[in-house]
Amino acid sequence: MNHFTKFDNKELGQTLIDLALDYKKDPRKDQQKGQGKRIGCVFLNPSLRTRVSTQLAASNLGVEPIVLNMDKEGWALEMRDGEIMNKGTVEHIKDAAAVLGSYFDMLAIRAFPSLTNREEDINDFIFSQFVKYSGKPVISLESAIRHPLQSLADQITIHENIKEKRQPKVVLTWAPHIKAIPHAVANSFAEWTLGMGHSLTITHPEGYELDVRFTKGATIETDQNKALEDADFVYVKNWSSFNDYGKILSTDPSWMLTEKSLSKAPNANVMHCLPVRRNLELSDEILDGNRSLIQKQAENRIYAAQSVISMLLDS
Amino acid sequence: MNHFTKFDNKELGQTLIDLALDYKKDPRKDQQKGQGKRIGCVFLNPSLRTRVSTQLAASNLGVEPIVLNMDKEGWALEMRDGEIMNKGTVEHIKDAAAVLGSYFDMLAIRAFPSLTNREEDINDFIFSQFVKYSGKPVISLESAIRHPLQSLADQITIHENIKEKRQPKVVLTWAPHIKAIPHAVANSFAEWTLGMGHSLTITHPEGYELDVRFTKGATIETDQNKALEDADFVYVKNWSSFNDYGKILSTDPSWMLTEKSLSKAPNANVMHCLPVRRNLELSDEILDGNRSLIQKQAENRIYAAQSVISMLLDS
Amino acid sequence: MNHFTKFDNKELGQTLIDLALDYKKDPRKDQQKGQGKRIGCVFLNPSLRTRVSTQLAASNLGVEPIVLNMDKEGWALEMRDGEIMNKGTVEHIKDAAAVLGSYFDMLAIRAFPSLTNREEDINDFIFSQFVKYSGKPVISLESAIRHPLQSLADQITIHENIKEKRQPKVVLTWAPHIKAIPHAVANSFAEWTLGMGHSLTITHPEGYELDVRFTKGATIETDQNKALEDADFVYVKNWSSFNDYGKILSTDPSWMLTEKSLSKAPNANVMHCLPVRRNLELSDEILDGNRSLIQKQAENRIYAAQSVISMLLDS
Repeated sequence: MNHFTKFDNKELGQTLIDLALDYKKDPRKDQQKGQGKRIGCVFLNPSLRTRVSTQLAASNLGVEPIVLNMDKEGWALEMRDGEIMNKGTVEHIKDAAAVLGSYFDMLAIRAFPSLTNREEDINDFIFSQFVKYSGKPVISLESAIRHPLQSLADQITIHENIKEKRQPKVVLTWAPHIKAIPHAVANSFAEWTLGMGHSLTITHPEGYELDVRFTKGATIETDQNKALEDADFVYVKNWSSFNDYGKILSTDPSWMLTEKSLSKAPNANVMHCLPVRRNLELSDEILDGNRSLIQKQAENRIYAAQSVISMLLDS
Repeated sequence: MNHFTKFDNKELGQTLIDLALDYKKDPRKDQQKGQGKRIGCVFLNPSLRTRVSTQLAASNLGVEPIVLNMDKEGWALEMRDGEIMNKGTVEHIKDAAAVLGSYFDMLAIRAFPSLTNREEDINDFIFSQFVKYSGKPVISLESAIRHPLQSLADQITIHENIKEKRQPKVVLTWAPHIKAIPHAVANSFAEWTLGMGHSLTITHPEGYELDVRFTKGATIETDQNKALEDADFVYVKNWSSFNDYGKILSTDPSWMLTEKSLSKAPNANVMHCLPVRRNLELSDEILDGNRSLIQKQAENRIYAAQSVISMLLDS
Repeated sequence: MNHFTKFDNKELGQTLIDLALDYKKDPRKDQQKGQGKRIGCVFLNPSLRTRVSTQLAASNLGVEPIVLNMDKEGWALEMRDGEIMNKGTVEHIKDAAAVLGSYFDMLAIRAFPSLTNREEDINDFIFSQFVKYSGKPVISLESAIRHPLQSLADQITIHENIKEKRQPKVVLTWAPHIKAIPHAVANSFAEWTLGMGHSLTITHPEGYELDVRFTKGATIETDQNKALEDADFVYVKNWSSFNDYGKILSTDPSWMLTEKSLSKAPNANVMHCLPVRRNLELSDEILDGNRSLIQKQAENRIYAAQSVISMLLDS
C-alpha cells in the first residue's frame, strides 16, 4: 500500500479491519513504530472528527501530527497547469505539494468537491496532484468523491456487529437535508461494502442515483419501505443529485429514518457518519436508542486511521 | 473531584492551592503521571491565556492536549432537545459530547453566555450537557456564569501575597468598559473569595448588582472610595448589568482605578484577569507600578490548571 | 546571540550556516538539547511554510512549539503607549508580551507591515516591544521590514550551490505582482547577501528603490537584461514601492523571469521564497526546470530555524 485514497481489494480491506481491531484492544502497542516520523494533515475544508481521530491515531503510533488549516481565506491553491496566476490563488498545488512532501513523511488531505463542476470533481484532481508532486504517501481525509477512512471505520463497525453466520443485508438509505451534500460518504460506503463482499441495497428518491462506478452490483430500490425490510445494517446519509449535479431535488420528510420505517426490520442496526441533523435525517428515538452504532463508528475512526498509518509506515 | 466547573468547598480549595504552589516550584515533578492520557480543549469562544496555560499545564503532567476551536463559522452546536435541525446548527451537543468523550480522557470547555437570554445563561446548560453525555471529567475554561480556573489562580495569587496574620480586606470593584462583558469572572471571584473564608466588599454603580447566588455574604457598597479604604487586594473587573440583563448602564470614567482611587489604601495590591483595557479599566500608572499582581495571576493560571488536571487524573 | 531579528555579522552568519548544514545531515542529533523548553510561535499574520518549518525545527531539538494565531478578528493588540483603550484593540502589547514571556522560554513572532504608515513600519516597533516586555529571546518570523529566517535559508542554499572558487554574481530582480507586497524579503536578502560578503546587483523598474539602509553596497541597475548577464544566483521577488510607500507602480509583464531573460546567464540558479505566482513572477519553464533552487530553499527553512533555536538555547 503506497497511498490510501480508495478501496483497493478485499484482502487488503480485511487486513486493515483486523489490524484496526488489534489496535482497538491495545492502542499503544506500536507506540515505537512511528518515532521520528511526521504526518502533515492538510485541511482545505474544516473538520472535527476526522482531524482529531487522525491526530490520535498518529500519536498512538508515535507519529507526530501537524495540522494545517488551509481553508481560511488567503491560501487558495491554484489547480490548473499553465495558469497565469494573477487572480485569487496564491500558490500552485505543485509547489505546495512539493514543499509539504519535503517537510513530512506522510500527508493526509481533505478537499471537498465544488459540487458545481462535475468533471473536475469526479477526477479527484487534488489528490492525484498531491500524490504526484509530494513524493510521499498520501491519505485521503475525504476527497471530492470518496471518504475511505470513514468507510473503513464503517466496515470495522459492521464486522464487529455481525451476529449471525449468514450474509447480512446492508441498506444505504438517502435522508433529507437542507444543504447540498457531497457524494463522498455514500460513494465510498457503496464501494467498500460491495468490495468486502456484502450484498447492498441502495434506496433513494428518483433522481438521486449515485455514480455507477461506485454502485455497480448493488440493488437500487426507490421504495424505501421495501428496501428496509429485514435489513441488518441501515446506513443513513443525505447526498445531492449526481445527475442534476449538486442539486437538491427533494426534502421529503417521509424519507427521514424513524422507528416506524424499521417496523419490518426488527434487528436493524443504524449507522451514520456524523455530524447528523437530528429529526431531519434521523429521529431522536433511533439516535438515542439501542439500534444506533453511530458512536461506535465515530470511535472506530481512530483505529481505521491507525491501521492505515501503520501500514503506510511499513511500505 | 469528578469535574471542575465551580467552587466546591474550602478544604478542596486549599488542597488545590497547595498543589498548585508545589507545581510552581517544580513544574515537571509529575511528568509521568499523565503519560498516555489526552485532554480535549474545546473552545466555543476564542482564548489566548486560557488555551496556552491549559496546554502547558497538561504538558507538564505528560498529558497530551488537543485544541479544538469550534467557534469558527460552520460548527454551531444545537443545544435544544427534540429540535428539528433544519436551520443553522450542524451537530447536536449530545452527539458531539459523546464523540469527544470517546476520544479523550478529559475535556476542557469554554462557552460564553449569549448575554441575551438570562435563563439559558444562568443554567450553564452547555456544561451540564457535556458532563452528562461525554462520560468523562469536564473542566470549565469559562462558562456562561463562572471562570473557576481564573478564580483558582486568583486565590493562589492572594495566598502568595498575604503579608500579615490578620484577615486581608478583599475588594472587587467594577470598572468601565465599552463592551457588554459577561459576569463569569466577577461571579467566580466572589464565589471563591467568600468560599475560602475571606471577607469581600463589592463596589459598583447602582444597577450592577451581581447574582446573589454568588455574592451572598459579601458587603455591597456603591461608594467606591469608601469600599477601597484600607483594601489589601483590589480586583478590578467590568461586567454588564445582571438585572437589566447584558446591558451597559454606565461608562462613568471616575470608576477607573487609579493611584488616586487608592489614596486611602496604601498597601493595596491590584488584580485583574486580563486582557485589560488600559486607561479605561485601570490606569497605566497602576499597571506598570509595584501594586500590580496581574502578571503573577497570569502565570499562576498554569499551576491552577495543573493542580486541577492532576487531581482529576487521581479520580 | 540573545535574539534573532536581523543580520548581525558575517562570523555569526557563517556559524549559523554551518550549524544548519550539520542539522540537515542529522536533524535529530540534538534531540535532547531542548527537552523541557517551549517556544511560543505568535502569528499576527497567517503563515504556512514558516509555521511548519519552525515547528519541525523546534521539535527536532526536543523543544515543544505552541502556535498562537492572533491574526483572527478579536485579538487586535494596542501598540501605542498611554492610549485610552476604548476602541478596537483588546490588549496592550506590553501586557501580552509579558504574559507570553512568562509562559514560554522563547518567542517567535510574525508581524507584517501596514504598508500605509512608513515611519511606523520601518521602526519594527512590534519586535522591539516584544524584546522589551517579554524578557525572553525573540525570533522574527518576518517583521514589517525583515525576514531573517528566510534570508538565512537563502544563504544556506547559496552556500550549498556555489560550484566555483570565484565570487558568485548574485542578482535580486523585481518581478510583477497584483498585490502590494512588503519589502521584508527583499530587504533581508540584500542585508544578508551583502553582509556575507557577496557582490549583489539589484534590478527593478524606476520608483522601486529599496530602503538604502539595506542596499548600501549593492549595484542598482534598472536594465534587467544587463543586470542578469552572467548571474550565478537570481533571486526573484516582488515588492511595492518604498518611496511612494506601499504603492504598485508597475505590473509590466516583461519583468517576469523566463528562460529568455536568462539567455546570457547560462549557469544561473533561480531562487524565490515562495509562495510564487506562476507565470506572473516566474515562468513555469523555470520553476519546473533544473535552474530552480526554490524547493531547496523551502527545505532549508527547517535547518535555518533549527540552527537559530539551537544557538538561542545556548545563550
